[in-house]
Amino acid sequence: MDLTNFLQTQLQPPSSLPLYKQLSLALTKAIETGQLRNGQRLPPERRLAEDLRLSRTTIVNAYRLLEQNGSVSSRIGSGTYIGEDAASVPLPPMPWNQLLLPHLSSPLSSILRSLLAIPAAADSISLAAGMPDPALYPLDMLQQLQQPVPASELGYLPIEGYAPLRQELAAWLANRQLHLDAEDLMILSGSQQGLYLLCKCFISPGDSIVVESPTYLGAIQVFQAAGARLLTLPGPLNSQSLPFLEDYLVRYRPKLFYLGSSFQNPTGRSPDASVCQKFLDLAAKYHLVIVEDDAYGHLHYETPAPQPLKSRDHYGGVLYLGSASKIFFPGLRTGWLAAPREVLNRLAEEKQYADLHSNNLAQLCLAEYMRSGKADTHLRHIRTHYQRRRDALAQALKRHCSADLAFELPLGGFYLWCRLKGEGSAQALLYEAARQGVSFVPGEAFYADRAGTDYFRLCFATHDEAAMEIAAQRLGQALRNLRKHPRRHTIPAFRSGQPIL
Amino acid sequence: MDLTNFLQTQLQPPSSLPLYKQLSLALTKAIETGQLRNGQRLPPERRLAEDLRLSRTTIVNAYRLLEQNGSVSSRIGSGTYIGEDAASVPLPPMPWNQLLLPHLSSPLSSILRSLLAIPAAADSISLAAGMPDPALYPLDMLQQLQQPVPASELGYLPIEGYAPLRQELAAWLANRQLHLDAEDLMILSGSQQGLYLLCKCFISPGDSIVVESPTYLGAIQVFQAAGARLLTLPGPLNSQSLPFLEDYLVRYRPKLFYLGSSFQNPTGRSPDASVCQKFLDLAAKYHLVIVEDDAYGHLHYETPAPQPLKSRDHYGGVLYLGSASKIFFPGLRTGWLAAPREVLNRLAEEKQYADLHSNNLAQLCLAEYMRSGKADTHLRHIRTHYQRRRDALAQALKRHCSADLAFELPLGGFYLWCRLKGEGSAQALLYEAARQGVSFVPGEAFYADRAGTDYFRLCFATHDEAAMEIAAQRLGQALRNLRKHPRRHTIPAFRSGQPIL
Repeated sequence: MDLTNFLQTQLQPPSSLPLYKQLSLALTKAIETGQLRNGQRLPPERRLAEDLRLSRTTIVNAYRLLEQNGSVSSRIGSGTYIGEDAASVPLPPMPWNQLLLPHLSSPLSSILRSLLAIPAAADSISLAAGMPDPALYPLDMLQQLQQPVPASELGYLPIEGYAPLRQELAAWLANRQLHLDAEDLMILSGSQQGLYLLCKCFISPGDSIVVESPTYLGAIQVFQAAGARLLTLPGPLNSQSLPFLEDYLVRYRPKLFYLGSSFQNPTGRSPDASVCQKFLDLAAKYHLVIVEDDAYGHLHYETPAPQPLKSRDHYGGVLYLGSASKIFFPGLRTGWLAAPREVLNRLAEEKQYADLHSNNLAQLCLAEYMRSGKADTHLRHIRTHYQRRRDALAQALKRHCSADLAFELPLGGFYLWCRLKGEGSAQALLYEAARQGVSFVPGEAFYADRAGTDYFRLCFATHDEAAMEIAAQRLGQALRNLRKHPRRHTIPAFRSGQPIL
Repeated sequence: MDLTNFLQTQLQPPSSLPLYKQLSLALTKAIETGQLRNGQRLPPERRLAEDLRLSRTTIVNAYRLLEQNGSVSSRIGSGTYIGEDAASVPLPPMPWNQLLLPHLSSPLSSILRSLLAIPAAADSISLAAGMPDPALYPLDMLQQLQQPVPASELGYLPIEGYAPLRQELAAWLANRQLHLDAEDLMILSGSQQGLYLLCKCFISPGDSIVVESPTYLGAIQVFQAAGARLLTLPGPLNSQSLPFLEDYLVRYRPKLFYLGSSFQNPTGRSPDASVCQKFLDLAAKYHLVIVEDDAYGHLHYETPAPQPLKSRDHYGGVLYLGSASKIFFPGLRTGWLAAPREVLNRLAEEKQYADLHSNNLAQLCLAEYMRSGKADTHLRHIRTHYQRRRDALAQALKRHCSADLAFELPLGGFYLWCRLKGEGSAQALLYEAARQGVSFVPGEAFYADRAGTDYFRLCFATHDEAAMEIAAQRLGQALRNLRKHPRRHTIPAFRSGQPIL
């Protein structure tokens, strides 16, 4: 006999017992008589209600009573099953796609996460990552931890950072013409954290941020992930782009302007001093907050570095980010922000939630290193090396690639920004180059609008002069191959890996 | 002559020249004739439009033309001034209150940030912060950095953490009956970062999170800052609170349940194994994500620690957080999350934006320390000390305070959770206690609804047994004072300081 018919025979509409109890008894009988077996699924509530012409509430109550008796068990999204534990029925997988919040758009993540996945020769030379040379890391900085470290320095620290580091850093940044007190500075878990916290404190989804074209790809990424609308200048910050900027300021009231102010990543350029003054006047007029990223400001070669905007900030709206990653080593995970107290206080609150404070070991090392004066000696040392590498790469490119490439010699930083003169994209060139044993970052990674397909970035900092010569030879071969087959290859989709900045 | 009258005489309505150009010429004349002087402010556009019975657009265009000629300059929020640069007028301050996003509610921040601001005697003993004793920090862990550290370990690391640490940790967590692969774990910048990233990936403002009463105040804070609605159980997770939980599950579909599963902060209690099983079944039924915080699970005293929920997770919804802060030292800023890959992948994306990866120095130290087997020796060592301190404090409290206090002896962790038997609040007691030279955290900090005013938390981990005796004596005196004047004091508002967890 079918279950519906059986149940109908058991229900006696005018009765002293409520219908849901009658139904529950009927189902119990069906279980006892073996009509319903352990692990079997009961009909969905809605269907049984229709079949029996009862209200759905009656069915729900009946099933619930059975569940309380331990005769059945139910599971959301799956149904009600005979038996106290539904272990006989495999549990459905957790619906993580429903539970996790959707991503905000971040189209560049594939490029950022995983350039490493390009097939490469065994002795390949990467000019892709913005990596300082490990052979130039100031490992003597770790000597600080070889002294007996007072345990009192290894507990919880103030959110804003280890006080001696804030003091040393405030004094040390006079070498960037900044005149700061310790209280003007917050220590960050890398300058990346500064960009992140600024987004959390300033940007609601849909708010606008102005960026140059091209600009630092890590900034593009974190801004897009925050749901910001990116307003791109048609080029770098210069006298031609200022009218565009004013138009953006009037039209969209952007919250932030992100600027790599010295030897910018990826172009190695810096805005002219005269443009900076007009830019600051415009920013003051519109209360535009400038986020000045000075990660490369200490890495000037033949001429002094440009003066940071922060040192000429007459309206109090410039937030200055610095980083230990390029000048010391990335594993310190330490950066800093100089900003007005109102901004530091608000960021400190967010940082407290994010990670309480940055790690003590790196802060202890850095404070002592700056106090000892070794940091300046180190900077002189690495500037000499990086300048030689820049020159070695530039000269080798002129020898091996000049027919196909154009670039300017940057006055500082880590990068040569190259333009392909002929046919073919930088992505196609990368495919050829990887086969020859050299890699780089295609230009479009640095454009919020994926322009720049005929540009690419070479990092001259990671390897020595001899490697620069070999890399340029290989690039020359790749360019010749590209000239023969300009449309042969596009790059396959990137896969997982570690971040490359 | 007044400016409006002068301008009116200059404007000739039916004319070949557009009105805004006429007005601009009239204003230029007023400047040339000295009626308007350098630095003087022009009338607001709206007012002049009314006075001259012209459209506001006409005024705006006239002012704009003057600005292009360099006759006037304008500044947002301030007005239009005679003269090319408005430097003679002091710049208005940046309107940071308008530019920064509003805070989401976080009523506990004052308590969390700044218990230190309570006036205290010079030799005061703090039982407030959840601080391990610096004298028990495993400083030999830093020896790892006294070997020559390979520079290759000091560059950028994978977002999910230093691979050798993930491997060692996966093996080491077998001591918590967890059977993990390295790929099941992500290294965090402290377990605080885990709570923060989980909020970013799961919680939209208004989403619900279930917590026990009382619970960890740092969790309350980060959840409230994320805009979550906190659903508090009427007490700890036990058989009485499960029906409440199911009601919450049906009614509000909470996204997360936050649980301190072993020797919970602040009560030191752990849920019964039988309750855990029913809890897991309920969670499975409703696809409830459990965030299990096991910061104290390694700190069990006479009996073995309770088995983590994660080790019995039959539905795949338990996310397990651990921390180096309490068992090693806080300055490592290192925690870990064991979770399904879908969750780790999503969190890795957020973590990449937040800080790229956690700091290398602590990860190198911890990996080697675990590999060497020293971590387990260290744990045995500190368990012995902390157990003695727990016993010393409990016995001293019985001697000096038993008339006024009730507490249970916790089987692990850092805390004694005390209830005031008589009149007066824990906040008033804290005021008396601070004067006697001992401090603690009032209970209400641990309740999302500010209940628990007659409870308080004593941390027995930070100081040795002798200090426990003195602290209890002082607390006894404070209790006697409170009994005399139960309503004399409330605590003044807290001020800035460092976080106390």
